[in-house]
Amino acid sequence: MTIISSLETCDIRFPTSRDLDGSDAMNADPDYSASYVILRTDDPSGLCGYGFVFTIGRGNEVQTAACAALRHLVVGRDVNEVVNDLGSFARTLTNDSQLRWLGPEKGVMHMAIGAVVNAAWDMAGRRAGKPVWQLIADMTPEEIVELIDFRYISDALTPAEALTTLRAAQAGKADRMAILRSNGYPAYTTSPGWLGYSDAKLARLATQAVHDGFRTIKLKVGLNLNDDVRRCQLARQVIGPTVGLAIDANQRWDVDAAIAWLKELAPFNLAWVEEPTSPDDILGHATIRRAIAPIPISTGEHTQNRVVFKQLFQAHAVDLIQIDAARVGGVNENLAILLMAAKFGVPVFPHAGGVGLCELVQHLAMADFIAISGSMEDRAIEFVDHLHEHFVDPVRIRGGRYLTPIRPGFSAEMRPESMVLFNFPDGPEWKTSRALVG
Amino acid sequence: MTIISSLETCDIRFPTSRDLDGSDAMNADPDYSASYVILRTDDPSGLCGYGFVFTIGRGNEVQTAACAALRHLVVGRDVNEVVNDLGSFARTLTNDSQLRWLGPEKGVMHMAIGAVVNAAWDMAGRRAGKPVWQLIADMTPEEIVELIDFRYISDALTPAEALTTLRAAQAGKADRMAILRSNGYPAYTTSPGWLGYSDAKLARLATQAVHDGFRTIKLKVGLNLNDDVRRCQLARQVIGPTVGLAIDANQRWDVDAAIAWLKELAPFNLAWVEEPTSPDDILGHATIRRAIAPIPISTGEHTQNRVVFKQLFQAHAVDLIQIDAARVGGVNENLAILLMAAKFGVPVFPHAGGVGLCELVQHLAMADFIAISGSMEDRAIEFVDHLHEHFVDPVRIRGGRYLTPIRPGFSAEMRPESMVLFNFPDGPEWKTSRALVG
Repeated sequence: MTIISSLETCDIRFPTSRDLDGSDAMNADPDYSASYVILRTDDPSGLCGYGFVFTIGRGNEVQTAACAALRHLVVGRDVNEVVNDLGSFARTLTNDSQLRWLGPEKGVMHMAIGAVVNAAWDMAGRRAGKPVWQLIADMTPEEIVELIDFRYISDALTPAEALTTLRAAQAGKADRMAILRSNGYPAYTTSPGWLGYSDAKLARLATQAVHDGFRTIKLKVGLNLNDDVRRCQLARQVIGPTVGLAIDANQRWDVDAAIAWLKELAPFNLAWVEEPTSPDDILGHATIRRAIAPIPISTGEHTQNRVVFKQLFQAHAVDLIQIDAARVGGVNENLAILLMAAKFGVPVFPHAGGVGLCELVQHLAMADFIAISGSMEDRAIEFVDHLHEHFVDPVRIRGGRYLTPIRPGFSAEMRPESMVLFNFPDGPEWKTSRALVG
Repeated sequence: MTIISSLETCDIRFPTSRDLDGSDAMNADPDYSASYVILRTDDPSGLCGYGFVFTIGRGNEVQTAACAALRHLVVGRDVNEVVNDLGSFARTLTNDSQLRWLGPEKGVMHMAIGAVVNAAWDMAGRRAGKPVWQLIADMTPEEIVELIDFRYISDALTPAEALTTLRAAQAGKADRMAILRSNGYPAYTTSPGWLGYSDAKLARLATQAVHDGFRTIKLKVGLNLNDDVRRCQLARQVIGPTVGLAIDANQRWDVDAAIAWLKELAPFNLAWVEEPTSPDDILGHATIRRAIAPIPISTGEHTQNRVVFKQLFQAHAVDLIQIDAARVGGVNENLAILLMAAKFGVPVFPHAGGVGLCELVQHLAMADFIAISGSMEDRAIEFVDHLHEHFVDPVRIRGGRYLTPIRPGFSAEMRPESMVLFNFPDGPEWKTSRALVG
């Protein structure tokens, strides 16, 4: 028997705040960080699983402590049992009767569960010799249903309904697999739109984005209405009338403020408005959506779990959603969310950027295209061109599309030299910067 | 200038799982715990502030790390500035641009904010020489409005509306203060109803509760329908037709399962059904409430913040709510919730039990009676007779009512000897129990 012999954690931080990369209306100065998890096994081949939570700096040590708190549920377990029944594995982590109090299923503790579940998926992919998108795509509908925790969502999606969706997607699977491998999956980019960038930098990067083949770009908004109008105007001039222009307020507004502000931005033919208000405010999103129709409303990168996504669908609160690979309880919960989105006919534009989020979420979008929704051209994965160089299997973008990952696993493994350099607080990068500040 | 000179944290755990105290359908074996915070000052009098998060064992170290992560926002601050503007203090903690990613305003990080905010209130009460309930009761309506963060709730409660409610409650304040001091505040008890208790223990403790003057008792349900029917029958026999019988499912059911199960318990004239499903499921609670009317539905002890409470009110999802002193972002956020409850006409039955939750939440209910809702006889504070002996200023119950706390502060200070004995993992209690297990 091969067992999981250890769960290691690391606190990795990149000093991105120095250049205002990633700045928006709520996140003025993020240091993109990863609370990183390695599951080691006693397999002679050196089989491992890698996973992480993305954070933006301070508190990454709290997140890392949360990952370590799951050790008793993981170490010593039979690798076969875990990778062959990832549904039970994920449910075991969610249902620890004492840890559950710290959520339930939200915030730091739930993100830690996501990191460990994703590390187990990485391990499963490596063992099967397949990238995770393909591992899922090759599963039977019955196997996928076994992965899902239907607790608290059965009033919106039953196992039988999930099975119906998955069986319908069996038709044309081989064709879609071929299309995906040859064309890749559409991307959109947020690289031009950070709030801390000058107009000149915005214009230059937006021009470049269109030239590179992206069909949609996204701007951060919400600090100052005049600035937002000017930046939307500028972006629209540069990208022309046919490229999509999305905006993202990062939860900046109350409900009434969102409605008033967005009416001023209506002339710019927006592809969507992301996170207009609190990610917890299902009814607020529904109110905003009704008031500013037909501008599409979206949220999801901070949506804590499948129960809130369920209600966003039930309340007709959104036109599209973002999913995030490292916010909810891992691949399993994201499959539940993708299945609900398919049932309710809501397209998914996965959230990415940060550290390694592009690397992870591409697998989920591609698995969705092959095995769940069967759609790809009416949606796109976010792309931000930051920090990919720290990953062993970085995303590959050509002509504004994500190419399919080829290596086994979840593309989650970070380069060992990056893990040493950016270790917090003792890695050389942080020791040097503290010396500079001091 | 007097400053906050340190923020100390302690991991305190009580081995309550040994007797199945606190057992319910989701929490089989809790070890009631506190992630404890002490704010020290350089005031020569030794002025301190005490606060804590209640957890149920494993993960208390994660919670403690989260409390420590707030240190940079607290240590070095002017005590005057903090206690004279607790509204700004609370908003500073909530709005740290990097820590916010770990919630926002939910789970481990938000509970840590609650502990530190509550510790600042304890300090403010001590400095003013008043218990916290009286500190709030003595504030002007304008001062109370300044405490509130209206972000994300202004579509349900504006500052002007809050002011109207608070000004209306000015009438009769002195009379209510006198009534409260002489009669205390109604309590109900959960002590008889833990799921791990035998029928004989349930009957004995329920009889005792009625004898002690409690007007309502509460049973844990949700594991087995036949058991629940038998236990409700037994409780009803013992307490008679006029004492209230509430039940608490601790999030056990999906929406449809809750409806089916509760129809079987309708004959017992239930005072309320608490936490029938996920605390995140606003629309689910509304669906259950409509289906089983007129049985009253409630939730709240796990409700993560004011944004979710707002929607419970807006969706008419509950007949009453529980508030918890140590789940949301401290006194300030609970005042926002109490103000919304008053506006929507929803009575509040505060959650208590655990470690020190009775000690804290009594202050909030009493302040509500004096300064916000003006009501007390249509509601009650939960009471569980556990672990009060570890507090310097424990609750005092007479004739099924909480007597008003008299000592300055928030009744949050734990006895130093308890903090040594139950320190985890190095306190004598845990060293001994590990030796016994070993």
